[in-house]
Amino acid sequence: MQGLALLTDLYELTMAAAYHDHGMFEPATFSLFIRDYPVNRRYFVSAGLEDVLHYLQDLRFAADDISYLERLRLFKPEFLAYLEKFRFGGEVFAVPEGRLFFANEPILEVTAPLIESQIVETFVINAINLQVMIATKASRCGHAAGRRALVDFSLRRTHGTDAGMKVARASYIGGFVGTSNVLAGKTYGLPVLGTMAHSYITSFGEEADAFRAFARTFPENTVLLVDTYHTIRGTVCAAGIGREMALEGKSLKGIRLDSGDIARLSRRARKILDRAGLRDTEIVASGNFDEYKIERVLSRGGVIDSFGVGTKMGVSSDAPFLDIAYKQVDYSGRPVLKLSPGKATLAGKKQVFRISGARGKLSRDIIGLRDDQLGKGEPLLQKVMSGGRIQVDPPPLAKVRTCFLEEFAKLPDRLKSVVPKRGDIYPVGLSPRLQKLQTQVIHRIKEKSCFS
Amino acid sequence: MQGLALLTDLYELTMAAAYHDHGMFEPATFSLFIRDYPVNRRYFVSAGLEDVLHYLQDLRFAADDISYLERLRLFKPEFLAYLEKFRFGGEVFAVPEGRLFFANEPILEVTAPLIESQIVETFVINAINLQVMIATKASRCGHAAGRRALVDFSLRRTHGTDAGMKVARASYIGGFVGTSNVLAGKTYGLPVLGTMAHSYITSFGEEADAFRAFARTFPENTVLLVDTYHTIRGTVCAAGIGREMALEGKSLKGIRLDSGDIARLSRRARKILDRAGLRDTEIVASGNFDEYKIERVLSRGGVIDSFGVGTKMGVSSDAPFLDIAYKQVDYSGRPVLKLSPGKATLAGKKQVFRISGARGKLSRDIIGLRDDQLGKGEPLLQKVMSGGRIQVDPPPLAKVRTCFLEEFAKLPDRLKSVVPKRGDIYPVGLSPRLQKLQTQVIHRIKEKSCFS
Repeated sequence: MQGLALLTDLYELTMAAAYHDHGMFEPATFSLFIRDYPVNRRYFVSAGLEDVLHYLQDLRFAADDISYLERLRLFKPEFLAYLEKFRFGGEVFAVPEGRLFFANEPILEVTAPLIESQIVETFVINAINLQVMIATKASRCGHAAGRRALVDFSLRRTHGTDAGMKVARASYIGGFVGTSNVLAGKTYGLPVLGTMAHSYITSFGEEADAFRAFARTFPENTVLLVDTYHTIRGTVCAAGIGREMALEGKSLKGIRLDSGDIARLSRRARKILDRAGLRDTEIVASGNFDEYKIERVLSRGGVIDSFGVGTKMGVSSDAPFLDIAYKQVDYSGRPVLKLSPGKATLAGKKQVFRISGARGKLSRDIIGLRDDQLGKGEPLLQKVMSGGRIQVDPPPLAKVRTCFLEEFAKLPDRLKSVVPKRGDIYPVGLSPRLQKLQTQVIHRIKEKSCFS
Repeated sequence: MQGLALLTDLYELTMAAAYHDHGMFEPATFSLFIRDYPVNRRYFVSAGLEDVLHYLQDLRFAADDISYLERLRLFKPEFLAYLEKFRFGGEVFAVPEGRLFFANEPILEVTAPLIESQIVETFVINAINLQVMIATKASRCGHAAGRRALVDFSLRRTHGTDAGMKVARASYIGGFVGTSNVLAGKTYGLPVLGTMAHSYITSFGEEADAFRAFARTFPENTVLLVDTYHTIRGTVCAAGIGREMALEGKSLKGIRLDSGDIARLSRRARKILDRAGLRDTEIVASGNFDEYKIERVLSRGGVIDSFGVGTKMGVSSDAPFLDIAYKQVDYSGRPVLKLSPGKATLAGKKQVFRISGARGKLSRDIIGLRDDQLGKGEPLLQKVMSGGRIQVDPPPLAKVRTCFLEEFAKLPDRLKSVVPKRGDIYPVGLSPRLQKLQTQVIHRIKEKSCFS
């Protein structure tokens, strides 16, 4: 994470310079939360925290960053000297990765001297926005697919290279079994999966030659793409290859359908494979899948063992951003908020308490003050950084994924629907002390006017 | 661009291994194109080529990439030995950055031995998809804004860090004047711009103190955010600071409106500023702007000098991906195509010829074979790489941007509308020789069947 110090909005640095100029070094707390649910969402999956913590721990301005800022002729030498020695030395409370959370709940709270807590805003939002959005989208695909396996095929259309990596990671947290992205496999230890492209088929004179050559090179891992010229003829051809493989004691792992009416084609393909004695050969479907198309194809009788889910998951196409905000809630021990229309915030350092009901089902959450003692509910935010140092080693991703799947099973099904009912929202309340604080702070602001 | 070799779909490597196994090293040509227009688009802006060329020139598999692939137990040692020495040594024809292009036109054609041209697919699509999408979206915002300046404010909600950089670059190509992203400013030499956040205001006890402190630190560059508590009162307060600055011989550069009814508030703010004698103080608007909201606010009489355009541009929210494809069109001198339903391709190496009409206005394009001699039209694809080496230094971005703005001025206005008419499409035809080739290749495929 070296070299990202300047990956920030200019205003973080101009504000910091003004604070520096006016000796404002008191501690401030900022709270990260999502204001509202995007279309058809009723929950969020926490993801991206590990990147944030490494960023905070490693944040440094390099010599050529300082020279660049100097060339802008905006900043005084004293401020640039301050940046040269800058370290993030603050404290972070956060909801662990893989946990469910809901609108308006703080998922991360940073407390540090004002400049330190302000200057990290842009990266913190950027990292959490992407991974929460994708883990949530992936979990929706998983819910629609039931027990069928989902693989991330999105790398070619994610927004750039970093998104390609983070989408693989976040979709795995959200329940996918693996990714086609080889570098993500290497970096995060994820299972990597893949088949072949149409160009592979067109490189050979005959489809059968293409299939046979692949089966020879990968006798244990052959999934044949059958729709290059004609899906049914391609499937018959693949079944022929499958029988050849069986004679040699190997088995055809699968075929892939990538276009056309997948529900109908998959039923016909299943029959062709079964009649050829290839009952274990799986049918993989790909091509514009997301939770909506998965649900549609399955409800129309599609016979599919696994889905390659690409672009629409990888860009969260129906909701490609979250209404996520990083807002100051306390400065120098004084709780603060803003009142901008439609964008009001909750003042004070906070905690979220999760209350379970019968059979462990999630029942409701209460947002309270950090030091609230409610006598019930599991506190979700944990201290993950202190003095700028990561407090606990992040858990392995496979464990984060399991943790997600376990909690997801406890969320009422109606909140997981691909298209949930309007107004059916998970109940989130405020603790009495938090409620009272808001009234006090708003009163204090409204009493004042400019130049008062 | 070191270290990106494994940022690819696994199937690129399994196909390559099968080709390697079967001695298929003949040259292949792949063509990159966009199948169809996303919602309300009638043109595209070329962007992303420079990244592709650097990637191709620098592509290497590092020792630890090879060890990782070995651990997957999928690949034979001979193939891994081949990857260790892998270099891209091919030829690339491409449409230069900043040029307009249209659906189905090839914008990049790669010719190289089969494995080399195949293995680069994922990155090539990833890089061009993002930047074309963003440059196009940015140009739509620019068209809606007329002569008003647009600044990229999207970094916090771009999909990851790489997208943050590429969005700043591509939106500049598409006509924006600068970005809030400091690292993009440093890396690409873009103008960097910014103001202050609400947290800056809430850090001070009084709004006026916050404003005054900023004006003291940045007397030449003060743009005050006025909506933290109450937009009109905030504007009155800012006007007071502007008068104080005027007494010291300085001037308040601007105020920023970030919420509420911007059309109405901007008219009231303009009056307040004018009455205070601050006629040169500009009004900057931000908050969920895209081409639709810019058009709406201006048509309702908004008095705005510049827009900060964030999330919706930075993720191209109404069209967060393109139907972009990299398809084999020739293998070993044999033109090829695929016939998958709705995804058919055009065989053969190609060129695009642009024909201008009266007063230099763009009139129509013809897609032809690479060696077509039409006797009219400007050929758009240029040889930009040969033997794996970049042929010409890429032009400075400011020049690419100017080139875009000049050609954009020649595109008929009806194709630039925020919501263009259905069916109003820029005319793109096929040359007679290209047309004939398609008929021949399709005939050849349909004659064959599996195991023939």
